Amino acid sequence: METAFATRMRHVKKSFIREILKVTEDPSVISFAGGLPNPASFPVEAVSRAAQAVLAEDGASALQYSTTEGFLPLREFICARYAKRFGLHVSPEEILITNGSQQGLDLLGKIFLDEGDGVLLEAPGYLGAIQALSLYQPRFCTVPLREDGVNISALRDTLDRYGPKLFYAVPNFQNPSGLTYTKENREAAAALLRRHATLFIEDDPYGELRFAGEETPSMRQFLGEQSILLGSFSKIVAPAMRLGWICAKPEIMEKLVVAKQACDLHTNTFAQRVVARYLADNDLDAHIAAIRQMYKERSDCMADAIARYFPPEVRCTRPQGGMFMWAELPQGMSSMELFNEASAMRVAFVPGAPFYVDRTDAPTLRLNYTNSDEAAIVEGIRRLGRAMDEMLNGRVCCAQ
Amino acid sequence: METAFATRMRHVKKSFIREILKVTEDPSVISFAGGLPNPASFPVEAVSRAAQAVLAEDGASALQYSTTEGFLPLREFICARYAKRFGLHVSPEEILITNGSQQGLDLLGKIFLDEGDGVLLEAPGYLGAIQALSLYQPRFCTVPLREDGVNISALRDTLDRYGPKLFYAVPNFQNPSGLTYTKENREAAAALLRRHATLFIEDDPYGELRFAGEETPSMRQFLGEQSILLGSFSKIVAPAMRLGWICAKPEIMEKLVVAKQACDLHTNTFAQRVVARYLADNDLDAHIAAIRQMYKERSDCMADAIARYFPPEVRCTRPQGGMFMWAELPQGMSSMELFNEASAMRVAFVPGAPFYVDRTDAPTLRLNYTNSDEAAIVEGIRRLGRAMDEMLNGRVCCAQ
Repeated sequence: METAFATRMRHVKKSFIREILKVTEDPSVISFAGGLPNPASFPVEAVSRAAQAVLAEDGASALQYSTTEGFLPLREFICARYAKRFGLHVSPEEILITNGSQQGLDLLGKIFLDEGDGVLLEAPGYLGAIQALSLYQPRFCTVPLREDGVNISALRDTLDRYGPKLFYAVPNFQNPSGLTYTKENREAAAALLRRHATLFIEDDPYGELRFAGEETPSMRQFLGEQSILLGSFSKIVAPAMRLGWICAKPEIMEKLVVAKQACDLHTNTFAQRVVARYLADNDLDAHIAAIRQMYKERSDCMADAIARYFPPEVRCTRPQGGMFMWAELPQGMSSMELFNEASAMRVAFVPGAPFYVDRTDAPTLRLNYTNSDEAAIVEGIRRLGRAMDEMLNGRVCCAQ
Repeated sequence: METAFATRMRHVKKSFIREILKVTEDPSVISFAGGLPNPASFPVEAVSRAAQAVLAEDGASALQYSTTEGFLPLREFICARYAKRFGLHVSPEEILITNGSQQGLDLLGKIFLDEGDGVLLEAPGYLGAIQALSLYQPRFCTVPLREDGVNISALRDTLDRYGPKLFYAVPNFQNPSGLTYTKENREAAAALLRRHATLFIEDDPYGELRFAGEETPSMRQFLGEQSILLGSFSKIVAPAMRLGWICAKPEIMEKLVVAKQACDLHTNTFAQRVVARYLADNDLDAHIAAIRQMYKERSDCMADAIARYFPPEVRCTRPQGGMFMWAELPQGMSSMELFNEASAMRVAFVPGAPFYVDRTDAPTLRLNYTNSDEAAIVEGIRRLGRAMDEMLNGRVCCAQ
């Protein structure tokens, strides 16, 4: 008997990531593909101490069912952090703890999107957002990114033309491009958004990982309750804990709590209490400073290797933080073909296509620098440069 | 500016549970309302040892991103357990680890349900299933339960008339009724289902908690791949870990993995590894035997108190396992009114209405016996019996 699936399942972009995993399973392959933090940054011993303390002092509560909203001391920590980082005052009632910020995307899709509703994304944009929101069958529109942030005139046109319900963006050290919106760009974007009913979803998993340049304000500071913030402990504590959050006004929070309860009752309480205890007993700022230093060194190392080994026709972003660089190949060059060439040379990356809603190929690619040591970065970039050279030369040959 | 939510949010049954929580927050109230395991059953020290071992031996992997399907040794444990309990042979490729079995419901709704698709539920049925599946806007139909399981002739009519895509049921120690399908009832239901394309979702969170009667086969043994199993560690290890699973054929699993990845990437790896380690290093059967004994004593205690204090017009189920009893009031008597009466006497329960898709009141109620000590059970049932007496007498007065 054939199984009949829901229509929405036809709208999911087939993930190329599984193809990549097949390549990167081979330990001789140097991978810049995954979006993985460096495990050397995980506070393993401090987490172990926190787990012991939580279970010794409050084991029964830590293992019991709990409230959908999440563990109050953890939500209070998040509020205090917003106050410290941005002078932003939000209350714990405006914070819902989620299974990583990815779940925030699913819940927002669930409470906001009817089929055909407009959703504005950056191009390129976070592929996990494309996947999560696709399942609600919206009408996607996109706005291109520039060096200083979102393209303002394109944003104006798109808002006027499509009046999207949501605009999802990663203004700090964007995934995949590594770009950051300047303060001026944020102000200009917020001024446009204020004229529309579009809710701005500001996903900020990397914001604390700045290793160059100056801290920029949150869009929430310009947009107030027209902004919804997504945050995550994945890159500053540990991703396996699957702890993220949504910060939104109470009217939205009420619907989110209903949706979250239907989805999975609540987020893992043991993990919430362990991380809350870790944060209470340790110096998070010192821990983040160490991660920033580590990622700065890897980023510098990759930038230097790129300058040395990539053909001059290939342009790369130079991030001020976060985990990714973005390379643009000469127009018409296929990053899917480059992926195959590079795989043969035992180096992997994510080709650009999955970061767009409407492409099967693109002359762009994402490089992660946080999860390889410096020797592997230099050797991997050397191999990738050779693969680029061979394709460029081959292409010239074919054209003659 | 008014916020426009998705149409599906209008279809969520307003949860009465929050109203109940307001009552049970008062520590002088004896609550039979929650569906909570007894925290004395949580293996706090063994979980602490497991957490330490996992972090000491494999901390970096335990805290890193991981596969969507879940931690392989945990999936292998689940397969071995099915083999031991039922002689059922499933492979780890047929197991997806979820955030509690509640998430399994959301994912199944997501991959299977278009608006208006038929979903068959038990009446009364698990309120979390009603909430999760409502968001996919199906057309619900229901089949009543009897002492021996589902009403077979009603099932035949409903399958013939509505051809539902899914039939969701809890055949062991059902939530809310405490009823269990006999072997004969399962065989008869399976024989009907085999003539239809309806997939049977067998939710089995309580199956291991049998304290009377004989083990019954899984519906999977009669239905093969027409059955989807949901399982959970919440009632045999600890609910805060939010670890459940879906067992389904590979064709379905493929879609579930896509949906799970879009929803939250993967389930908390730290929790998966800690529970896998706990299961490897401890005797789960001995642990479960202790829980069964504890719950048998509470169930017997509640049944004795009911026999003593409830008016004879009130009929109660006598479960062979699990966590709940179900009381039927004389026809026409309101369990919502009884809830208010009982609250004033400082005892709480869940009125029947939320367990039906189409009622705002019902002459039924759910009683949890696992999370109160014996003195509280006796005193709570005494108070509830008094509230029933007063309502019955009051009703007689009014009718005269």
